[in-house]
Amino acid sequence: MAEKGETTRARILDEAMRLASREGLEGLSIGLLATSLDMSKSGLFAHFGSREALQIATLEHAAGRLQARIAPVAQLPPGPGRPRFLFQVLRGWIDDPCLPGGCPVTAACFEFDDQEGPVRETLVAIQRVMLHGAAEVFEGFAHPAWNREQLAFEFNALVLAYHHGARLLRADRAADWAGTALEALILKAQLPPGR
Amino acid sequence: MAEKGETTRARILDEAMRLASREGLEGLSIGLLATSLDMSKSGLFAHFGSREALQIATLEHAAGRLQARIAPVAQLPPGPGRPRFLFQVLRGWIDDPCLPGGCPVTAACFEFDDQEGPVRETLVAIQRVMLHGAAEVFEGFAHPAWNREQLAFEFNALVLAYHHGARLLRADRAADWAGTALEALILKAQLPPGR
Repeated sequence: MAEKGETTRARILDEAMRLASREGLEGLSIGLLATSLDMSKSGLFAHFGSREALQIATLEHAAGRLQARIAPVAQLPPGPGRPRFLFQVLRGWIDDPCLPGGCPVTAACFEFDDQEGPVRETLVAIQRVMLHGAAEVFEGFAHPAWNREQLAFEFNALVLAYHHGARLLRADRAADWAGTALEALILKAQLPPGR
Repeated sequence: MAEKGETTRARILDEAMRLASREGLEGLSIGLLATSLDMSKSGLFAHFGSREALQIATLEHAAGRLQARIAPVAQLPPGPGRPRFLFQVLRGWIDDPCLPGGCPVTAACFEFDDQEGPVRETLVAIQRVMLHGAAEVFEGFAHPAWNREQLAFEFNALVLAYHHGARLLRADRAADWAGTALEALILKAQLPPGR
């Protein structure tokens, strides 16, 4: 029974994630989700309690889906293969046809950055985990003098710019630009900073 | 008379820009703007014609305000001073207290990237101009073998990551991270690509 409940919840949140990708997290409501799933609004209200709780659950669900794709990175030996793998996963996520409007978490980062409250707090927590993960892929081969937050910032920068180039500009070359920037970052990370 | 009309329009659009920064462009409506300016909704409808036209006018107004701040870059001699100046302007724009939720254009880039129509087209046009400008600041000192789009991509990347770090994460060090990334990009741009 618990398992069935989990499957139903995952199915509901997959659809919520798709809607948030298309409409923005601000456009996601229990009513919209109910219509889209052909479920009763009251049933979904019973499940989530509020629109805000649904928004938070959707963000956490998206982050969980993405983390599951990222997890195999830990099986790779330390080295450039790790940031390359992480970027490929993120690229696949941004391009995923299940996310018709790009990553709903990334969009929400720019939508909710000034709106105090639990949605923003959830986003900050998710982004901190992502940045920590981005720093970790450089462990074991980056020059030890590098500030890990700097590497994570620069990795995140090229992921954001890839999202912008691929989804907004629909530039075929966005993947090349990001790939070139990534290889330069991997090279740079192995030298002392400031070189 | 024409001048007064222009001033009124600029004042209206400054407020629309502020609201779009806070609420997102999707949250911007003629009704909200009328309330905020204590003007009649019908007057604003007469002025803009539709919510979509208001959204487009607001984006173009924001881009114009930003371009006016950027314009002095052309007075600087070609060299690293140009990308540094451009970044300082963009940083000032992102941090501007008149934009309580960060740059409304950047947020809209992630909000509207999948929504076909004139708003999206306006955003794409604005971003192409911005990226062209970002490429231009490297003219005259970057190694000629560099692809200008690559440099623009990497410059845009650090601006997006600065927005993310400063506005969402509220990281005091975001400016340092972006500054370090910028100096590395300036250095790299002067060497042949792939070095």
